[in-house]
Amino acid sequence: MKVGIIGAGQLGRMLALAGHPLGLDFVFVDTSADAPGARVGALIPGRFDDPAVLGRLAEASDIVTFDVENVPEEAAWTVAERVPFLPPPPALGAGQDRLAEKRLFRSLDIPVADYGPVDGPDDLAAALERVGLPAVLKTRRLGYDGRGQQMLQHPGDVEGAWERLGGVPAILERFVRFDRELSLVGVRSVSGETAFYPLSENTHAGGILRRTRAPWEDPALYDLAVGHLSSLMDHLAYAGVLTVEFFAVGKTLYANEMAPRVHNSGHWTIEGAATSQFENHLRAILDLPLGSTEPLGHSGMVNFISRMPAARDVLAIPHAHLHDYVKAPRPGRKLGHCTVVARTPEARDGALAQVEHLISES
Amino acid sequence: MKVGIIGAGQLGRMLALAGHPLGLDFVFVDTSADAPGARVGALIPGRFDDPAVLGRLAEASDIVTFDVENVPEEAAWTVAERVPFLPPPPALGAGQDRLAEKRLFRSLDIPVADYGPVDGPDDLAAALERVGLPAVLKTRRLGYDGRGQQMLQHPGDVEGAWERLGGVPAILERFVRFDRELSLVGVRSVSGETAFYPLSENTHAGGILRRTRAPWEDPALYDLAVGHLSSLMDHLAYAGVLTVEFFAVGKTLYANEMAPRVHNSGHWTIEGAATSQFENHLRAILDLPLGSTEPLGHSGMVNFISRMPAARDVLAIPHAHLHDYVKAPRPGRKLGHCTVVARTPEARDGALAQVEHLISES
Repeated sequence: MKVGIIGAGQLGRMLALAGHPLGLDFVFVDTSADAPGARVGALIPGRFDDPAVLGRLAEASDIVTFDVENVPEEAAWTVAERVPFLPPPPALGAGQDRLAEKRLFRSLDIPVADYGPVDGPDDLAAALERVGLPAVLKTRRLGYDGRGQQMLQHPGDVEGAWERLGGVPAILERFVRFDRELSLVGVRSVSGETAFYPLSENTHAGGILRRTRAPWEDPALYDLAVGHLSSLMDHLAYAGVLTVEFFAVGKTLYANEMAPRVHNSGHWTIEGAATSQFENHLRAILDLPLGSTEPLGHSGMVNFISRMPAARDVLAIPHAHLHDYVKAPRPGRKLGHCTVVARTPEARDGALAQVEHLISES
Repeated sequence: MKVGIIGAGQLGRMLALAGHPLGLDFVFVDTSADAPGARVGALIPGRFDDPAVLGRLAEASDIVTFDVENVPEEAAWTVAERVPFLPPPPALGAGQDRLAEKRLFRSLDIPVADYGPVDGPDDLAAALERVGLPAVLKTRRLGYDGRGQQMLQHPGDVEGAWERLGGVPAILERFVRFDRELSLVGVRSVSGETAFYPLSENTHAGGILRRTRAPWEDPALYDLAVGHLSSLMDHLAYAGVLTVEFFAVGKTLYANEMAPRVHNSGHWTIEGAATSQFENHLRAILDLPLGSTEPLGHSGMVNFISRMPAARDVLAIPHAHLHDYVKAPRPGRKLGHCTVVARTPEARDGALAQVEHLISES
């Protein structure tokens, strides 16, 4: 069975590493011959919106999935019309436009922060009236890891904000003073079996995920999150891993965004859960029985951004597991991560502090 | 960092799958282009005793290790004279001759069953006098998975036994009426750090490992086994994973054989221990800090021999993890394995029984 993956980044790489033991083989589409996935599967070089390249991928694959969110839905359909393409193209499309995403959440009674569309300078004033300050102005499309966002703190920040964002279709969102950021990673198979990992607690800085801890124990919020994610999965006739990031405020979860794929806040599941999100994504799209999502202890994950620490230093930390994506360093680029799994939250947090100390030294 | 591996079988494949997250890259030597390892690393096609092929491997690698035990020590030295080769060639050689192996064990005060060398028909009579019946006549070299062995139960089995074995240098060993078969997988890094997994309890049939359960809890035997393995590691100035298979009789452990590499009875460590034997082998030969060998529950491993069950059936069993080596089926060939990890020995044994039921149906 050959699985085609659009994008050979670290997510594709970790999918392949999880899938080889299942007897699966992998073929990637990526512009870069030294992309992280290219060492653990075959590579079709090219752009993921090039119909000829996608045709070759469909030809070479029994089923196709993706590791990048910005595959145009149209391109996904050209593949889906030839071989199974999962998660389904409409789910891919649903996460690509922040306005459509908010409307989808609302239609399913999933709470979202106040927002307003901003297609021009006049819209911004109208949206501000409804949303108030502080607020975040975000491009509707192609924003990730904090790119394409502007924080509007004071009235003085408003003038020219939309133009500074590039004058593209945008959305203004109320800035939520959250108690914490939580995410839920869930999985639904082709035949509708579902499983959910425990809640993850996330820390972002500069719009990029820095740290995740799991399980975050809050049964009421967990049930709420599972309800929201289930609604989305059912609505989208979903297959694969689906993640929603929430802002927790008291007993409410505001959906911030969804990702129709394996997610950075679920990387801890490789060592910290009975079955990783990567293996479960593959089981789900191939309609195999899902694996247990039970946590194996208390896990923490730290992203390595801009530079990698020395492997020797990471591996000397108790409970530490290293993931080096073998990417060339670049400012703001995710190059790897480290997961710690310990028997107690205290031991986990102690090990996490050691990892964070390591990368704060530069 | 590129790791060269002589042999691209399932052991090499699992080494590579464990090593990619550490940022390592792999190159294999194997005669078969569709060997299990060839999907997760580069392949230099050729025989592992061909100096030209080994020269290309040394050229392409920063360090070389092996997944097959029968690499000639001479061939290992030709690599070791160019790049680091670990475990060290003498350790490789020590495990290749059953007579030399027995003598090594004895010299280190590690108990072994009575034995005698058999280089011809006359030697067999002399050895039988010392060893008695029942006994096992084994070729000194190149035997594995039960090949090259003859059980001598009755006096009538003796006549012509050596000739039936091929008339090659052999060894007669007393058949040990063991309480159980145990193995210890340990690891020693270049700088001498050591770590030991819990004891594994093994079941063989037809000379092939069928099932492993771990941890086998017996603190006295564990200490004994760690002592024996430590003696061997120190004597061999060892680096990498080293395994010894024992026959347990009362409070004594008789060493049966050693394997200077990752071992089938340690496959459960992939899901069942904090760090797998494969990752620790790589950490050890690269002189990185070793990872924790702590068990994560109660594990069981069943080998899939001659034919693979359907993935769907294996994955439907609670706690089951599938490892398909993507090898062509052949009678007696190890094609894959399944590991179950549960919270209790009872749950583990229940899941194991389901796996064994699955493969007994054919």
